[in-house]
Amino acid sequence: MDYSSRLAGIRRSMAARALDAMLVSQPENRRYLSGYSAADHGIAESSGLLLIVRSGSTYLLTDFRFRQQAEAETEGLTILVYAKGIFALLKTLLPELGIGRLGFESSYTLHSTAQRLFDLGRLADIDMIPLKGIVEKMRLVKSEEEIQHIRRSVLLNEQVFQKAFKMLPRMETEIDMALEIAAEMRRQGGERESFETIVAAGPASSLPHAVPGRREIEPNTPVVVDMGLVLDGYCSDMTRSFCHGKPDDRYLEIHRLVRRAQLAGIRAVRAGARASDVDKAARSIIAEAGYGKNFGHALGHGVGMAVHEEPRISPKSRKKLRSGMVITIEPGIYIPGWGGIRLEDMVVVREDGCENINTDTTWLDK
Amino acid sequence: MDYSSRLAGIRRSMAARALDAMLVSQPENRRYLSGYSAADHGIAESSGLLLIVRSGSTYLLTDFRFRQQAEAETEGLTILVYAKGIFALLKTLLPELGIGRLGFESSYTLHSTAQRLFDLGRLADIDMIPLKGIVEKMRLVKSEEEIQHIRRSVLLNEQVFQKAFKMLPRMETEIDMALEIAAEMRRQGGERESFETIVAAGPASSLPHAVPGRREIEPNTPVVVDMGLVLDGYCSDMTRSFCHGKPDDRYLEIHRLVRRAQLAGIRAVRAGARASDVDKAARSIIAEAGYGKNFGHALGHGVGMAVHEEPRISPKSRKKLRSGMVITIEPGIYIPGWGGIRLEDMVVVREDGCENINTDTTWLDK
Repeated sequence: MDYSSRLAGIRRSMAARALDAMLVSQPENRRYLSGYSAADHGIAESSGLLLIVRSGSTYLLTDFRFRQQAEAETEGLTILVYAKGIFALLKTLLPELGIGRLGFESSYTLHSTAQRLFDLGRLADIDMIPLKGIVEKMRLVKSEEEIQHIRRSVLLNEQVFQKAFKMLPRMETEIDMALEIAAEMRRQGGERESFETIVAAGPASSLPHAVPGRREIEPNTPVVVDMGLVLDGYCSDMTRSFCHGKPDDRYLEIHRLVRRAQLAGIRAVRAGARASDVDKAARSIIAEAGYGKNFGHALGHGVGMAVHEEPRISPKSRKKLRSGMVITIEPGIYIPGWGGIRLEDMVVVREDGCENINTDTTWLDK
Repeated sequence: MDYSSRLAGIRRSMAARALDAMLVSQPENRRYLSGYSAADHGIAESSGLLLIVRSGSTYLLTDFRFRQQAEAETEGLTILVYAKGIFALLKTLLPELGIGRLGFESSYTLHSTAQRLFDLGRLADIDMIPLKGIVEKMRLVKSEEEIQHIRRSVLLNEQVFQKAFKMLPRMETEIDMALEIAAEMRRQGGERESFETIVAAGPASSLPHAVPGRREIEPNTPVVVDMGLVLDGYCSDMTRSFCHGKPDDRYLEIHRLVRRAQLAGIRAVRAGARASDVDKAARSIIAEAGYGKNFGHALGHGVGMAVHEEPRISPKSRKKLRSGMVITIEPGIYIPGWGGIRLEDMVVVREDGCENINTDTTWLDK
């Protein structure tokens, strides 16, 4: 990845805001700009910050535990290890570097941390400037190199799904299948799940975010599998729904309706289309069939280094899609007591339409 | 769990701060006060907030995806589902309830979210008050019922470890063992790993936070396994180090030194002891043997509903231990190019000493 041109882009954004330097705390943003891939164990346990000086170096500030990883994964950065916490280091470093205006990521900085930054700013005469979504904005439109990474992530994810799907007759419970999927992702070289794999069978499938349990996957009930992995920093996200056994008429009716909605959503995707119109294209089909209240979530979301990122494809989102964005299209119908059906693919927005990255057709067109 | 007496305790803290209501966003705090166990998919994707009104009800504000889970897991709460985001709901709800002073958790609220709260406060004439660690403070000292839960989590974790340890001869790579451990935790009824299991073999074991890779577990090299699970909401955390094969003199020397340091740390634990003195008891043994620079992290940390919580057992932490706290004691020595050894048990602080919850002795006293 071309980190230097990404950093150059960020420095242009900094110049436009008259920032002398900027702290990057959000893990995917950090990785996007440096290659440093450590995850945070929660926002309160950071594995490091980038400090990008507009007319100077880029620093990676981290602690002892991550020094070797930082050195192995990055190039051209100055790695500084703090022994007594990040604030003790910033307190001496920022004045040394002559920083007068410092940006920080408002949407990945705790209120309590921001208070400490403002205190430090008063002490050291530095203006602390909350920033929103500067790196995220760069990440919105993917380069062809990034799309290639995403494609590899999607295809590996499908391979894992297909293997698990074949093993279904030997799986007793949701959790058996979810564990097999998670383990197979890692065996095949995925870094990790991009989110906790959902396997929901029977009535549990009516929970869009069901946690797999020791529930048996019973014959002739709907099953939802929603899964994704991270490969070389890029995420995949796919949902398949099927009936384990012989589907009845109700299942088929709802499944086909969701599929029709998904296809209508996919057909509405193109550069310049409003996200809300894409959502509407799919949602109106479900609403007209009388299931509007059973589709309570947004139609889709962006995917890249984060599994959920901008743009949201929802009734409220007025943003226009741009060529090179990668989004999910995932309508669903959820009926408490019976179950749910959701179908999710990932597509690349192109000038004249979109490219569906998914190739798996399991049960899609039953 | 006795959620009503916990809520009563929080209402007393609110009274002392003249708060009319308080928002609880931190997932473990939320669960501690309500039983609602949903995790957040990152801080920017909340699965709900508690709104505790001092002289009124307790509300759980969440979205459509979590309604069924919220209803199943909680009692006596009013569940409100927001369709258009949490702020739209708060904007009408807070004035209706006559809230004039509202607390929020400064250490689990993003700066950007806090800005929106302050904006809402100006609009609706509500003072927004950042709070620090109120629920965390209640969670510091565990009840005997909680200690019982933690003990069950620790014992299950040991069972999983012992099973994986026996399978070691059949394991080729770090990742095989880490996956087997993670899967076995779930099969045995654990909710999830309390953190990503670390299996680090050979030189990789010199990284305290190593990510398991496709590295082979070679004979006669040090192996570190650091693992924990969540059972009924309570975490375990244990590290074992061993040599896969025949240890050489250097391995044995360092292993025994770490074990001596661990035992010295454990012996220093009692109600009233300063955390820094407990750290020192262990650290001085390692330093005197000339390995002070190879032990770069704190000696331990609290464990409960979160795997890392207060108190920190570090050279800087002047806090006094209290009876009923549960902490880890985990000294380590890390030598780049060779490997690392860390030994970690969990102990309950008691008036006259401590109770070691761990029972596993694998390789401890080689």
